[in-house]
Amino acid sequence: MEIIAEKINGTRKAVGAAVAGRDAAFIQNLARLQAAAGATYIDVNAGTGKTEPEDLVWLVETVQAAISLPLCIDSASPTALAAALPHAAKLPLVNSISGERSRLEGVLPLVAEHGTPVIALAADDSGISKDLDSRMEVVRRVLTATRDAGVPDELVYVDPLVLPLAGFDQSGAVALAAMRAVKAEFPAAKLAVGLSNLSYGLPARSLINRVFLAFAVDAGLDAALVDPNDTALMQELAAAELVLGRDPFCRQYTQAYRGGRFGFEGTTPTAATP
Amino acid sequence: MEIIAEKINGTRKAVGAAVAGRDAAFIQNLARLQAAAGATYIDVNAGTGKTEPEDLVWLVETVQAAISLPLCIDSASPTALAAALPHAAKLPLVNSISGERSRLEGVLPLVAEHGTPVIALAADDSGISKDLDSRMEVVRRVLTATRDAGVPDELVYVDPLVLPLAGFDQSGAVALAAMRAVKAEFPAAKLAVGLSNLSYGLPARSLINRVFLAFAVDAGLDAALVDPNDTALMQELAAAELVLGRDPFCRQYTQAYRGGRFGFEGTTPTAATP
Repeated sequence: MEIIAEKINGTRKAVGAAVAGRDAAFIQNLARLQAAAGATYIDVNAGTGKTEPEDLVWLVETVQAAISLPLCIDSASPTALAAALPHAAKLPLVNSISGERSRLEGVLPLVAEHGTPVIALAADDSGISKDLDSRMEVVRRVLTATRDAGVPDELVYVDPLVLPLAGFDQSGAVALAAMRAVKAEFPAAKLAVGLSNLSYGLPARSLINRVFLAFAVDAGLDAALVDPNDTALMQELAAAELVLGRDPFCRQYTQAYRGGRFGFEGTTPTAATP
Repeated sequence: MEIIAEKINGTRKAVGAAVAGRDAAFIQNLARLQAAAGATYIDVNAGTGKTEPEDLVWLVETVQAAISLPLCIDSASPTALAAALPHAAKLPLVNSISGERSRLEGVLPLVAEHGTPVIALAADDSGISKDLDSRMEVVRRVLTATRDAGVPDELVYVDPLVLPLAGFDQSGAVALAAMRAVKAEFPAAKLAVGLSNLSYGLPARSLINRVFLAFAVDAGLDAALVDPNDTALMQELAAAELVLGRDPFCRQYTQAYRGGRFGFEGTTPTAATP
C-alpha cells in the first residue's frame, strides 16, 4: 500500500504561510515526521496563488533536501506542474488529472512526457456524480484519454472520490462499489483515495475516515492520501491487511507494533479526535 | 445488529467467584453496565462446574432482576440449559449448538421445544477446520439437523468461528468467506460471531477484533458476541454501518455520538489496549 502523506498542502493555513515565507525548517519538519510515520510518498501542494509555479519548485527542492522519499506533486495547474516536474529527484506521482477538459488537455501531456504515475479523479466539468454508472462513465473517458496519450493503465491511480456522508448517506457505498467496478473493468489500473471529504460535517471524523479506509483496502486500494501521523488510522490499515489474510505470518502487523508505529507499546494508543 | 454482551462468563475468574459466592451485586452491576452501553442480549455463562445447572438458574434470575433485556443462555450442557430455560422471562437466545453429536442430540431438542433462536458453531467432533469447504460441510450438516428438528433457518445464527491469526494467517479471510457462503446458500439464516480467538497471541487485540468486526458487518453479520463497554469497538460498529450506507441520514451514528456511546464528547476516545 502506498501511503501518500497529505500534510504539506498550501491550502492549509500554516503550510501556506510557511511556503510564502520560505520557512524551510517548518516544511522539512513536516516531511520528516511523515516519512518517519511510514509514508511512501510525500504530497507537496503549494496552494493556488499566482506564485504557485515558483512556490511548487521551492517546495519540491526543500522537501527533497530533507527526505529521500519520492514526491506526489499536487497541482491542478499545468504551468506549476511543468515548472516543478523537472526538479523531482525521484519519479514522482502526479496529483492529479480528472475528466475535466483543462486537466486532460493541460496536465495529461506532462504526465505522458515525464512517464510518471498519476492520480485520476472520477469527476468532470459537471462535478462529482452521486450515481455509480455516471461515475464509471467518467472513469472510462479518463482511461481512454490516458491510453490515447500513451500512459499505461498500470500508471493510473483512479480515485473514485467520496462526497460527504452528511449530505449523501450512500457516499461510502458508492465509492466502494466504484472501486470494485474499476478493478473489474480495468484490472491493470490502480486505486487511490483521499479521505477528507467523506466525514465532513460529522463528529469523530478520523474514526469515519479510518473505517472507510479498511473497507477500501478490501476493495483493492493501492494508495491512500492520508495523514500518516494519525496512528489510529495506521493501526487500522495494518489490522485490515492482517484480518483480510494479506499479512503472511502476521509479520508486518507485529513489526509495526514492535516498531512503535502504532504510537503505543503496552499502553493506550492515540485515537480519533472528533 | 444484535449486541450480545459477553462479560458475564463464569470461565472468567472474577465472574466464576461471584457465581460461586452468589454475589448478586457484582453480577447485576456487570449486567447494567453492558445494558447501558448498548447490549441487546446479555450472555450468561455459569462456567462448567458440577453445580452448573443451579448456578445457571441463579444467574438467569439474578440478571433478570436487574435489567429487562433478553438473555443469551450460554452452556454446552443439556442439563444446565434444561434447568435454566424455563426461568427466562423473555425469549432467550441459546448459545450454542454445533456439529458435535452431543450438542445436536442434547441441546437442539431443547431449542426446538422452547422455540428459541440459537447460535450454531461451524465445528464438529473433529474440531474447527481451516478449510472453507470443510467448514461449510459442517454448516450444512447443522442446518439439516435444525430443519429436521423443526427449527426454521431464521432462528439459526451461524457462527463461522475464527481461529487465532497468530497460528493461521488466513483465519480472518476464511471466516469472512464462510459468512458470505452461508448467506449465499442459506439466505434466511443469520450470522453471529464471537471474536476472542482471532487476536489470541497478538498485540493490540481489541484493534484486531474491531477491524474484523467491521468486515463482518460488510459480510452480513447479524449478531456479535462482544464487550459493549469496549467503546472503540462500538464506535467501529457504528462507523461501519455509516460508511457502508446502512445508516439513513447518518442518524444512528450521530445519535450514538451525542448520546456519549462512543465514550467521548469532544475528547479523545478510549481505544484499543494491547
